[in-house]
Amino acid sequence: MLHFSGSLTRLVGELKKLPGVGEKSAQRLAFHLLKHPSNIEALAQSLLQVGERVHLCSVCFAITEDDPCWICSGERDSGTICVVEEPQDLLALERSRAFSGRYHVLQGALSPLNGVTPKDLRIAELMQRLQGGEVREVLIATNFTVEGEATALYLTRLIKPLSIKVTRLAHGIPVGSDLEYVDAATVQRAVEGRSEL
Amino acid sequence: MLHFSGSLTRLVGELKKLPGVGEKSAQRLAFHLLKHPSNIEALAQSLLQVGERVHLCSVCFAITEDDPCWICSGERDSGTICVVEEPQDLLALERSRAFSGRYHVLQGALSPLNGVTPKDLRIAELMQRLQGGEVREVLIATNFTVEGEATALYLTRLIKPLSIKVTRLAHGIPVGSDLEYVDAATVQRAVEGRSEL
Repeated sequence: MLHFSGSLTRLVGELKKLPGVGEKSAQRLAFHLLKHPSNIEALAQSLLQVGERVHLCSVCFAITEDDPCWICSGERDSGTICVVEEPQDLLALERSRAFSGRYHVLQGALSPLNGVTPKDLRIAELMQRLQGGEVREVLIATNFTVEGEATALYLTRLIKPLSIKVTRLAHGIPVGSDLEYVDAATVQRAVEGRSEL
Repeated sequence: MLHFSGSLTRLVGELKKLPGVGEKSAQRLAFHLLKHPSNIEALAQSLLQVGERVHLCSVCFAITEDDPCWICSGERDSGTICVVEEPQDLLALERSRAFSGRYHVLQGALSPLNGVTPKDLRIAELMQRLQGGEVREVLIATNFTVEGEATALYLTRLIKPLSIKVTRLAHGIPVGSDLEYVDAATVQRAVEGRSEL
């Protein structure tokens, strides 16, 4: 950016911190914003508003502006808790409209190599929610990655002794898939989990 | 985003206005920012600062925080003016360190189909700068697109009658290119513009 404008250089530096945005993209975004001054103000204000208003629900640790969030304070079935890694996983489940219970957002997954241990996740808070005796089922919806699976296993061992049913999202062929292109491990799980028609 | 957080939905809406950012990317950026609250504040502040401080130089219409900009107010050769379309083109030329004169940023290129006529560009201001008699050469560095070439032609016809030398950036093979993959039109221009060694 040479020494044209210190504040523009600073903006490019901030934009570069965003995921998937390098020096070139950051410059392109900055110049685009310069061409649309009203967008600069609107973007800045909405950022400040998010920083001020959005926080984690004290019950389920989803993102919310109210506390507790609308799911925790609503009419949803409190007998089922779905455990997810991140707030965006919760959104994916809500979009499916398939789950009517409540949620618990771990804020990550176990990953000893990256220094993420059970203490770094909201696991203690989950166990506390399960103490009341109201919860009949915990649906573990962590990602199907090594970290997500490890977290699922860890939680299963922790929760089962409480005589609470622990379930996991089904493996299988994605809707709309061409069987030819689905990987062998997924097909294997789909065969194992076949259902009667 | 469902009805989780109005301000987050608004932020996603603002991010979607950026070039190359769709709904999915905007959500990813928003959630990334939520995970790094200090970045939210820094990005918002740098946006506001850019909106406040950065404007166009009243002489050459480059982006600047001071007026006139450091090039117009500096020691640069005022006998040569390089005409570019956008501020980022000026940066590209400055990075090359090949030009020691001053600049004039048109803020676009002629494009009748998109309703961009000479009145919409900083052409009148350029002609005024040429009145002083100090300028010996105008280097036209508009892009080599249909619009850029049309603008170059238009400017040439306007400036030549003032007995000012009008030049254009050279066409040729890009540095580091494999001749095999260079398009025919570029090779043709490179042959026409060959230089003696």
